[in-house]
Amino acid sequence: MDKIVRVNMSDLSSSTEGVPPEWAGLGGRALTSAVVAKEVIPSCHPLGKNNKLVFAPGLLSGTTAANTGRFSVGAKSPLTGTIKESNAGGTAAQMFARLGIKALIIEGLPKGDAWYGLYVSKDGVSIAEETELIGKGNFAVVASLEQRFGKKTGVLTIGTAGEMRMLSANISVKDSDSKLRSHGRGGLGAVMGSKKIKFIAIDDSDASGVRLADPEKFKEAARTFAKALISHHATGEGLPTYGTAEMVNIVNAAGGLPTRNFTYGQFEGHEKISGETLRETIIERGGKPKHGCQAGCIIQCSQVYNDKDGNYVTSGFEYETIETLGANACIGDLDQIAQADYIMDDIGVDSIETAVAFGVAMEAGVLAFGDGPGVLKMLRDEIGAGTPLGRILGSGAGNVGKLYGITRVPVVKNQAIPAYDPRSIKGIGITYATSTMGADHTAGYAVGTNLMGVGGGVVDPLKKDGQVELSRHLQIITVMLDSIGLCLFVGFPCADIPTCVPALIDMLNARFGLELTPDWIGGLGVNTLKTERAFNTAAGFTNHHDRLPEFFEEPLLPHNAVWDFTGDEIDEFWNF
Amino acid sequence: MDKIVRVNMSDLSSSTEGVPPEWAGLGGRALTSAVVAKEVIPSCHPLGKNNKLVFAPGLLSGTTAANTGRFSVGAKSPLTGTIKESNAGGTAAQMFARLGIKALIIEGLPKGDAWYGLYVSKDGVSIAEETELIGKGNFAVVASLEQRFGKKTGVLTIGTAGEMRMLSANISVKDSDSKLRSHGRGGLGAVMGSKKIKFIAIDDSDASGVRLADPEKFKEAARTFAKALISHHATGEGLPTYGTAEMVNIVNAAGGLPTRNFTYGQFEGHEKISGETLRETIIERGGKPKHGCQAGCIIQCSQVYNDKDGNYVTSGFEYETIETLGANACIGDLDQIAQADYIMDDIGVDSIETAVAFGVAMEAGVLAFGDGPGVLKMLRDEIGAGTPLGRILGSGAGNVGKLYGITRVPVVKNQAIPAYDPRSIKGIGITYATSTMGADHTAGYAVGTNLMGVGGGVVDPLKKDGQVELSRHLQIITVMLDSIGLCLFVGFPCADIPTCVPALIDMLNARFGLELTPDWIGGLGVNTLKTERAFNTAAGFTNHHDRLPEFFEEPLLPHNAVWDFTGDEIDEFWNF
Repeated sequence: MDKIVRVNMSDLSSSTEGVPPEWAGLGGRALTSAVVAKEVIPSCHPLGKNNKLVFAPGLLSGTTAANTGRFSVGAKSPLTGTIKESNAGGTAAQMFARLGIKALIIEGLPKGDAWYGLYVSKDGVSIAEETELIGKGNFAVVASLEQRFGKKTGVLTIGTAGEMRMLSANISVKDSDSKLRSHGRGGLGAVMGSKKIKFIAIDDSDASGVRLADPEKFKEAARTFAKALISHHATGEGLPTYGTAEMVNIVNAAGGLPTRNFTYGQFEGHEKISGETLRETIIERGGKPKHGCQAGCIIQCSQVYNDKDGNYVTSGFEYETIETLGANACIGDLDQIAQADYIMDDIGVDSIETAVAFGVAMEAGVLAFGDGPGVLKMLRDEIGAGTPLGRILGSGAGNVGKLYGITRVPVVKNQAIPAYDPRSIKGIGITYATSTMGADHTAGYAVGTNLMGVGGGVVDPLKKDGQVELSRHLQIITVMLDSIGLCLFVGFPCADIPTCVPALIDMLNARFGLELTPDWIGGLGVNTLKTERAFNTAAGFTNHHDRLPEFFEEPLLPHNAVWDFTGDEIDEFWNF
Repeated sequence: MDKIVRVNMSDLSSSTEGVPPEWAGLGGRALTSAVVAKEVIPSCHPLGKNNKLVFAPGLLSGTTAANTGRFSVGAKSPLTGTIKESNAGGTAAQMFARLGIKALIIEGLPKGDAWYGLYVSKDGVSIAEETELIGKGNFAVVASLEQRFGKKTGVLTIGTAGEMRMLSANISVKDSDSKLRSHGRGGLGAVMGSKKIKFIAIDDSDASGVRLADPEKFKEAARTFAKALISHHATGEGLPTYGTAEMVNIVNAAGGLPTRNFTYGQFEGHEKISGETLRETIIERGGKPKHGCQAGCIIQCSQVYNDKDGNYVTSGFEYETIETLGANACIGDLDQIAQADYIMDDIGVDSIETAVAFGVAMEAGVLAFGDGPGVLKMLRDEIGAGTPLGRILGSGAGNVGKLYGITRVPVVKNQAIPAYDPRSIKGIGITYATSTMGADHTAGYAVGTNLMGVGGGVVDPLKKDGQVELSRHLQIITVMLDSIGLCLFVGFPCADIPTCVPALIDMLNARFGLELTPDWIGGLGVNTLKTERAFNTAAGFTNHHDRLPEFFEEPLLPHNAVWDFTGDEIDEFWNF
């Protein structure tokens, strides 16, 4: 039987309860958002006793279905002040699902200064004071916990940034290579830090596992689903070959590659950081050009990046990090970016938020554009050490802008805009503006449709026509992906291959013994988005916050594109 | 003829125009708010090209009427994101009024990195590039401009904090002793800095002066008004004797003296920083226990504070600064606080915002509570020098809290709550919550009524009854004071002495040849508050922002008082 597990840090207790009917059909984001919306006071301080941190695997996590291992973390975000869900691969979703834990809800704040570690197993959650790992980086935490509890232990952890409650702090999750994936956005690592939890170790030995209502039907649907993924050119070819960094050249060609803190739309050195160059470099150095962020992934858009001597540098090395450091901070050097990626993973900061913050800091003169060694030094010696400058850089792009009086600050609801300029890729601009999460490309990835004609027909990136509808459609679909435990890229075959969505619905029905129809997707998406928005409204957000920064009025070469949506046009998004 | 003067920094031009009929009856805050509401895009970046900085003397400034020399500065605030008016004494209001300048509106941003100084005279405004004074403190600016343009020159200036666009940067105005008064709140110095204006020099020689429609009637009304001020015990006795620091013992006795970052309501060392001690110390050292912030002041609540050797340390040494450094940051030492006050004036930061920011920084462990020498050093070497730590401390209490992950952060709309704890002085809490300006005790000073029975009858500070009505009444009255150029304390005789308001109305009528009745006050107040609120609404603020921080749920000794107003109860404020 699935269960809800609660941990109350105020009295260091834990308890288990049944799943209330209203949450039974929910998973992942739909569930974390439902819990936060129901149980968290919208006006609460995100780092105070009234915020809750909610972990939930997807509805199909723990099954053999491809790419269903994404894990959701939700809370009120200290970075944005909005509701927040951030999901990642790794092994936690599948372990939670096998343990029958539909959600882990962490409440309250402990008294005193002690730190704690949680241990989740079939027997529930135990809470123990932790001293050894405090002040340690995420990689050390994983290594140490594997020694302590065994190699198979799952791990959720915060680095020193989370301990220091920095607003860009992420929550890391161990992957099947004992490396890290990140619940990057929204500063949820600071929420975990505020609750004085350094790590959550997961032991799924003797777990009951996931029971299928109709194993045969499930198997068949899973096969159809996997076939759809493999046969789509994006998920079957582009992403596995070049990883997400395939977008560098595509976005550069479209004139939407944020460069020099969003001053230009193309980067001279784009070839140095392209997916093609990345692939060649990886192969040449004996890294892995294909890699999954989760067991059961058949897209394999991730990779393992080695240095010149063939030693591991980083994995989960994504387009958004490469772009925002490579072009937007003008560091056209994959090795430096890879090192930065590793350090960011180790100290536990969101690589998008941090990289964009560096772009703003460069505009403020804190360091020079292109100063890769300076970035590496500041990551280690300032952010990692929690110096005042580190506190500033670790507080996100919006706060760096405020502290240095900068006006070109690419944030929405105080969250950094990632690696796609909304002036020349207008669909993603609507997503940035309207997402309940602050600027977030994954909330409705209109880039695929705008630039590559995947995932929703043909919509001209430079025109306003159809963008609001596209973003709305994608945001609804994305809720479904985020709730089933699917990765974002499953959205492409869902939109373009007719067998894909029915197979997903069949899997859900076969897993739970339900009789859902594809309409379920729209209902889940609409309900979840409205629930999230209602939380934000009660926290003080209005349509006036669904706006891009003023500086996007400045024309962007090569198209002289400007952000020209009126407020009313943007607000049309919520007309559903 | 009164005129509106415009300066456009984008092309370094200036122009003069007549006063449009809609602005004819406005002055001070009513006028700055009307201009900002009409001409500034509410969503604009406060430091960008679309914000405007508006200076306006009060309606009676420049006349011989007592205490009418307050000067208003308005803009969209970079600290709060709301509309903002901040007023101060000094000589600028009277000089502007004599020059017939009803408002100076500064628009646009200059191209390039050059700094400028403005020179305002009967011939209009000239704009000259400035190099000599860049990087200099406010006292040096005043001294240098007096050398350059003559001793009588009026001066508005920003310190290094304003140059660095720090969010706590103020605009200083020269007083008649060539010392400084501050347009302290809301970071308007950063707006002036964003427009690259280091100073505005004012030359009122050969000014046409203020013409009175009925000089005899004016004289008589002015006499009645002055008599009311002198005969009220607060403005005629308490304030002239002890200055605003008379409040230390009163507020301490009431259990509302914020202590140790708003953890306690009483300070053990309160006698060390009381108005009584201040007065004795000043007299002993040959300072001035009575002093006016403006020519024509007959309250004289200010003072000149000397060191042990009888040398000038600071003036305009107010309760709020003394309390927030003395009790809230636990520095029970008037000499250290006075030195801090001088440095804050020199580098140009709001002494309330900065002192409260230090309280939060102390809670974060940046320095110890009570570390006066540490505060002095950080003011000089960190904030003054613009180091990363200085940027943090100069960004206001709210941002210090965000950067260090602190939950006890006393701000409303990101502006620091000054020296009165709203749990045990509930009327001022309603003002903090509802003011269009962010937490601001001067927006509706319910403390006088709550603790001393002045300015609005008897309202128990610990009970909710009558507080909303009190704050509303006071906020409406305060708009009138802020618009006529009167100091806040005139509100006491206005409420308590029947001849006071009629005399004010008579003066206005005699000045402008009007036939106003006392009803005018309510109309002006209501219209201005609604105009300001409409701006804020269009900038994204809702009733959810009219709330005090969550930590005020914690009981405050000695009364175990909590902030217990519901949202609906607070929202009743706007029901007019």
